[in-house]
Amino acid sequence: MTDRQSQTKLLGEFEIIARYFAPLATDPASLALHDDAAVLRVPEGLEVIATCDTLTEGVHFLPGDPPSPIAHKALAVSLSDLAAKGARAYAYLLALSLPQPPTPEWLEGFANGLCALQDETGITLVGGDTNATPGPLSMTVTALGLVPQGHAVLRKGAKPGDRLYLTGTIGDAYLGLTLLQDPARAGVWGLSAEEAAFLVDRFRRPSPRCALSLLIRNFAQAAIDVSDGLVSDLEKLCHVSGVGARIDTRRVPFSPPAAKVLEREPSLLASLITGGDDYEIVAAVPEASASAFEAEAETGEIPVTAMGMVVLGSGDAAVLDPEGKAMTFERKGFSHF
Amino acid sequence: MTDRQSQTKLLGEFEIIARYFAPLATDPASLALHDDAAVLRVPEGLEVIATCDTLTEGVHFLPGDPPSPIAHKALAVSLSDLAAKGARAYAYLLALSLPQPPTPEWLEGFANGLCALQDETGITLVGGDTNATPGPLSMTVTALGLVPQGHAVLRKGAKPGDRLYLTGTIGDAYLGLTLLQDPARAGVWGLSAEEAAFLVDRFRRPSPRCALSLLIRNFAQAAIDVSDGLVSDLEKLCHVSGVGARIDTRRVPFSPPAAKVLEREPSLLASLITGGDDYEIVAAVPEASASAFEAEAETGEIPVTAMGMVVLGSGDAAVLDPEGKAMTFERKGFSHF
Repeated sequence: MTDRQSQTKLLGEFEIIARYFAPLATDPASLALHDDAAVLRVPEGLEVIATCDTLTEGVHFLPGDPPSPIAHKALAVSLSDLAAKGARAYAYLLALSLPQPPTPEWLEGFANGLCALQDETGITLVGGDTNATPGPLSMTVTALGLVPQGHAVLRKGAKPGDRLYLTGTIGDAYLGLTLLQDPARAGVWGLSAEEAAFLVDRFRRPSPRCALSLLIRNFAQAAIDVSDGLVSDLEKLCHVSGVGARIDTRRVPFSPPAAKVLEREPSLLASLITGGDDYEIVAAVPEASASAFEAEAETGEIPVTAMGMVVLGSGDAAVLDPEGKAMTFERKGFSHF
Repeated sequence: MTDRQSQTKLLGEFEIIARYFAPLATDPASLALHDDAAVLRVPEGLEVIATCDTLTEGVHFLPGDPPSPIAHKALAVSLSDLAAKGARAYAYLLALSLPQPPTPEWLEGFANGLCALQDETGITLVGGDTNATPGPLSMTVTALGLVPQGHAVLRKGAKPGDRLYLTGTIGDAYLGLTLLQDPARAGVWGLSAEEAAFLVDRFRRPSPRCALSLLIRNFAQAAIDVSDGLVSDLEKLCHVSGVGARIDTRRVPFSPPAAKVLEREPSLLASLITGGDDYEIVAAVPEASASAFEAEAETGEIPVTAMGMVVLGSGDAAVLDPEGKAMTFERKGFSHF
């Protein structure tokens, strides 16, 4: 379009790809990003898990956030989906919409964020699209994972009697975002600079539980990653599985800084378990496999906590407050619109 | 994030998915869009072609454009990439960023646009992501195609002596966009309402050459779809193949309305062959296979035209004007930034 063509030259679209993205495309499947497509050979006996997620400035991260954590999060949220399916991370495509010609510094930070998570997880860039946009910075990652045929773990499959496990801790990202929007809260909550930074980092740089994918596959009957909020994502799993759930907030794991905040302001409990952006995993593990699952998670140094049970029901989760009473929620998680 | 949560209720994110997108997810691989991922089994002996493209309002389509052609184009541009690779269209994921809660009418039009192209090409929706954005409407389609192992057609592979074929006609989309931006041009160019509508439709609703994919695979040594402009995309193919090209604009095919415009305003020739948004395919076919390729294309009723030759060179295309002289270009195609 005509007005696209009159933009200032800084780094051209194809120069950006060649200089910053091609070095991330180490798998021959990427065709070194020379073609507008990747050619992926799926090893026999495996199937492909495909998932995509968009991050937009002002929605999923804040205007002016540094590029490295933005890139990290863009890739991490899709890796989290793959882990919840029990899949090994394999390859991704990145569609990037830039509001103005990016500086070399910005691009370098962005590529570094991707590179570090590639190194950590083994996933590599195989394709994408780089665009100008009149709107905010945004990006869509489509991630592909591999899993032995018939062994993908779905949201469907949880059975009454299964134990409900949760990785890591919940609510840190909610608190981190709150601190970014209102830094004065750190004082109100009595947080040290270090504790506040921890929470902000949990919002900005979620850790996808890739290391858990094999255990999910071997032990879980159903799983989901927590992106929209613990309660609502748990209910999505319950809904598709045709079951209910009962979880006890006294057993839901909180990080030490989050626990500190909760002690000062107990009414935040509902926000922490519905706030989203956690990228932890809820897994339904049959009672008979529970101790083996726990033992292997411990060997792998992956924190997992039994927080409740799958029960008979039709999609609803009963959530017990610290007094053991059922909580009610204004909203159970994030929904666009 | 907090301000995402205060938006007016109209149709919720999950309601939108269930009502408008789940009916498009007819392949079991989609898990009926219940999970945040698709599970794809690739038949033995095939490999996967993966490509993604973003369309943004104000860049790839105009503000206020109706939803059905927007959806059509979003899917068509990725289908065009698959066809150029010789791949059969298989499945796609759609990441949709909506500036406000969409009306049921808008969503219905959008879903209808996808549905019609699904029916035409056999591709089906298997996953995606629906988001709110403070910016313009945008969407990213990641399309997956299938091709027998080792038979994907790349940009690389063209050899001196190959004939260069082009499907369909070039420049219609450039003229269509110009007419949308300045409708008075129709009169200047002496176009009937029907002719103007044809050109606008070519911009809004490009026809991916899916029907050609088998012939590309059987006859072409290299191919590329024309999205950024005929000259620049041809040069991309040449660059990766390590060859040059010579094309004769007297043999480049133009539609009757485009030919009419060119007769009135011959200076538009350069714009037509560099304007982009054509989604036609350039294929390099060895001389020995040329007549068989032409015969099969004719049987399949796919218009293909020999417009030039691959020659020795290093990425540059010599383009002859109507007097047989080499043309020079201010720009050879579209580039973001």
